[in-house]
Amino acid sequence: MTIQVTLVQIDNYGPWTVTPEPRREMDLQTLQSRLFADVAQFLGHRDAYVFSTRFDNMIAVTNGVDGAAHATLQESIGNRYPVSISLATGVAARPIDALEAANERLQIEGSAQDEGRTEVLSGEYLSETDRSDIQIAHFDVVDATGKYTDRLNEFDTYSTIQAAYGSLMRYLRRKHGALAFFVGGDNVIAVCPDLPERAFNAAVDHVAADVEVALQVGVGRGSSAHEAGFAAKHALEDCRHDGTSVELFGAPAAGD
Amino acid sequence: MTIQVTLVQIDNYGPWTVTPEPRREMDLQTLQSRLFADVAQFLGHRDAYVFSTRFDNMIAVTNGVDGAAHATLQESIGNRYPVSISLATGVAARPIDALEAANERLQIEGSAQDEGRTEVLSGEYLSETDRSDIQIAHFDVVDATGKYTDRLNEFDTYSTIQAAYGSLMRYLRRKHGALAFFVGGDNVIAVCPDLPERAFNAAVDHVAADVEVALQVGVGRGSSAHEAGFAAKHALEDCRHDGTSVELFGAPAAGD
Amino acid sequence: MTIQVTLVQIDNYGPWTVTPEPRREMDLQTLQSRLFADVAQFLGHRDAYVFSTRFDNMIAVTNGVDGAAHATLQESIGNRYPVSISLATGVAARPIDALEAANERLQIEGSAQDEGRTEVLSGEYLSETDRSDIQIAHFDVVDATGKYTDRLNEFDTYSTIQAAYGSLMRYLRRKHGALAFFVGGDNVIAVCPDLPERAFNAAVDHVAADVEVALQVGVGRGSSAHEAGFAAKHALEDCRHDGTSVELFGAPAAGD
Amino acid sequence: MTIQVTLVQIDNYGPWTVTPEPRREMDLQTLQSRLFADVAQFLGHRDAYVFSTRFDNMIAVTNGVDGAAHATLQESIGNRYPVSISLATGVAARPIDALEAANERLQIEGSAQDEGRTEVLSGEYLSETDRSDIQIAHFDVVDATGKYTDRLNEFDTYSTIQAAYGSLMRYLRRKHGALAFFVGGDNVIAVCPDLPERAFNAAVDHVAADVEVALQVGVGRGSSAHEAGFAAKHALEDCRHDGTSVELFGAPAAGD
Repeated sequence: MTIQVTLVQIDNYGPWTVTPEPRREMDLQTLQSRLFADVAQFLGHRDAYVFSTRFDNMIAVTNGVDGAAHATLQESIGNRYPVSISLATGVAARPIDALEAANERLQIEGSAQDEGRTEVLSGEYLSETDRSDIQIAHFDVVDATGKYTDRLNEFDTYSTIQAAYGSLMRYLRRKHGALAFFVGGDNVIAVCPDLPERAFNAAVDHVAADVEVALQVGVGRGSSAHEAGFAAKHALEDCRHDGTSVELFGAPAAGD
Repeated sequence: MTIQVTLVQIDNYGPWTVTPEPRREMDLQTLQSRLFADVAQFLGHRDAYVFSTRFDNMIAVTNGVDGAAHATLQESIGNRYPVSISLATGVAARPIDALEAANERLQIEGSAQDEGRTEVLSGEYLSETDRSDIQIAHFDVVDATGKYTDRLNEFDTYSTIQAAYGSLMRYLRRKHGALAFFVGGDNVIAVCPDLPERAFNAAVDHVAADVEVALQVGVGRGSSAHEAGFAAKHALEDCRHDGTSVELFGAPAAGD
Repeated sequence: MTIQVTLVQIDNYGPWTVTPEPRREMDLQTLQSRLFADVAQFLGHRDAYVFSTRFDNMIAVTNGVDGAAHATLQESIGNRYPVSISLATGVAARPIDALEAANERLQIEGSAQDEGRTEVLSGEYLSETDRSDIQIAHFDVVDATGKYTDRLNEFDTYSTIQAAYGSLMRYLRRKHGALAFFVGGDNVIAVCPDLPERAFNAAVDHVAADVEVALQVGVGRGSSAHEAGFAAKHALEDCRHDGTSVELFGAPAAGD
Repeated sequence: MTIQVTLVQIDNYGPWTVTPEPRREMDLQTLQSRLFADVAQFLGHRDAYVFSTRFDNMIAVTNGVDGAAHATLQESIGNRYPVSISLATGVAARPIDALEAANERLQIEGSAQDEGRTEVLSGEYLSETDRSDIQIAHFDVVDATGKYTDRLNEFDTYSTIQAAYGSLMRYLRRKHGALAFFVGGDNVIAVCPDLPERAFNAAVDHVAADVEVALQVGVGRGSSAHEAGFAAKHALEDCRHDGTSVELFGAPAAGD
């Protein structure tokens, strides 16, 4: 299992947001969300995944996306936004190690707030022959709508989901070097190294014990983030229908 | 101090994302982000704020935005997206109570996953004469770039910021009924009831003790979310320049 | 009848598109289309209309939109795009005269390709008491799908529609100082001075004689572009149902 | 020279825009522009070109884009818009013949307003070995800013440019089976069969004689629309600098 991770960083963004004076917050929110959406479209159509993370820094799983495609993305954002992006890519067996390698490539070029350090494009990319499967887990909260959304006010629901996410992401990071991301609603997607079923059972148990939120999880494998993630979604559907907590290796949809 | 809060909820979104089978994750991410961006533009140009929260549920501070504008927003989203939204609005002295009132208006109409419950538009709106100032606090992490972004890998930086955010949001919610939202980078915006300076010092101290992250905060007041938030941004600039932890009631920029 | 027209011009756009070397055409198309869409959302929610025209120059009918809103639009585009816009507004009884007045305000400030002339905001705006109805005509081609789209190749269909549009727009401009815009499909929207029914019959006859395309038209009045245009759309529906060529003053939908 | 042309058609769009009653025009304009922008991004990143044409029907030059990519585009639009699209692709030596072939594939499946005919995906695609160069010409108006934009009102400038475009597009269509598209400002991009320099001189002369507008044109060749179009842009820059009317086969920029 080898994972290719790309760090997307908006160049010198913090200073830009307050120069010459603070910019309207809703314009910043719009800019960030649309820039993320454009990266998601670009990478998604190449079967990669990107996560919004802190918006000024985004983390992508880019198995199958080569350096030329990364260059095209960088050019296109530079042509259409008032800010530019740097892209650094790393490869490793564990997601955290791939990210670490990517991050070092960027940090060595200068600070995120160094106005002379723009549009870095640096990385190693998996060749076709190097490629192997990756594993993705898609978690959600058991009956989130019935237990929370339809009963609590939205902030308390959000707070509960965030606590569960925080507990899960720290556990998976510490224990396995996996990277888990909140993707809206009650959904968390984790990019994993090669993990057995009992690791996911343990993760679900950890969150239940830590913050009293019941999770379920579908796990998929595939040669790209989309393929693995799509299998995970199907496996999660099996959890929903069968009332199970963990389902592994759901078969990908025919023709997908 | 009276706050008008609007809950924006995508109708029956969960089931839609898996019907007839799971949709591509990056398409969902794009849809959610752009829908949020459109709401941010619509409300932002009316001096309101909206926060992405869980994306399928968003929380907005809408002082100054009337029922007709809410109806226009709902119609416009319905015309341009494959999903529709419901909008419920409440008014109270504390943000959490305004949200609670909004939420009840929606919950009484049916479940978030009831396919017959679409495009609810329900609310009470502040009249021109009722309006009074609101208070917004803009927090960020002291030297986040130097301490984290330029040193750690992005996931660990993100994890640290999220831990600080989680600590802060739960503290402000419990103690004051304030609603705090992560808005990207190392920024958190909190919509507050009428709080004195020492309350913000206590919040900063709480987070430092709880998760060992140093925050600073600018606090502003104004008749709209934008006006209060803009004053808060200016006050936060004062923290950055003067090395202080809390700055209150920064004067709005001339002409703003 | 008094019409307020705003000219939206991207500042120094031509040189930007080829500096330092030509930018990718599809990035330029994306930028232009999204910028237009953002202006359309902003103005549309204020019951105004904007037309894409040449994309680097757009023409808007902005009755009811004041100077403060124009300033907000300009700031928001400046915050989110790599280009900025200038806005000039004029008022007159005939659309062409209002546009002429707007254009002069901009031209007097310098050339569209003067890099020092950016973010001009200049105009006169109708006050609440000045406002009166405007008249909008919505034309389309009789049975365009059956006669053209389903039979010819798309380029020849497009060419036919463009010829009809060219004939109509030049006739209305010359004869009445009206401004007609192609808005997609087989639709043309004309912003008119106060014209009687026979003027529209004559326009339809002119196009039939000139380029052998049969048009039909609904005409509406209202205090804003949306209100007048919406009435025109309803009137055009009457043409479609009744087989008539011209329908005037369709009643606006209840509650609209 | 072999050209692959894709027709993009929004399914049953006309009826949708007036069901259950006419939708707000600015929402329709926004929807159309953003859908076009998304198609432009998707195809542009694969070195293809798409033109907005009538917005409900768009014409693309897709050499190098295979059937799987067309399927991904169709799925992604269907996931994110309230409308779906059909895609039909044809191949021929002359652009008009390739479009004709594409159009027939779609028309045979039913009417553009047949609500049962949705998401057609039909076409033949060039294989890697079949691929050969295509030729693209990029026209603009000599000193459009000085002669028109800075002097006339925008509508009369637009009318002049549209007349020149109409004259040019009809001439190139009739004479060579080329497809010319207005792309904003004073720019027209023509997708051509294999034409010699004198053909472009004749086109420029025709427009000068027909509507008294002076054009200049850069012509490029390449294995994709982007490559040919980029060479054409560079050639047009040579016209601007050297004052010539026609420049052929500009060398692509290093590294492009």
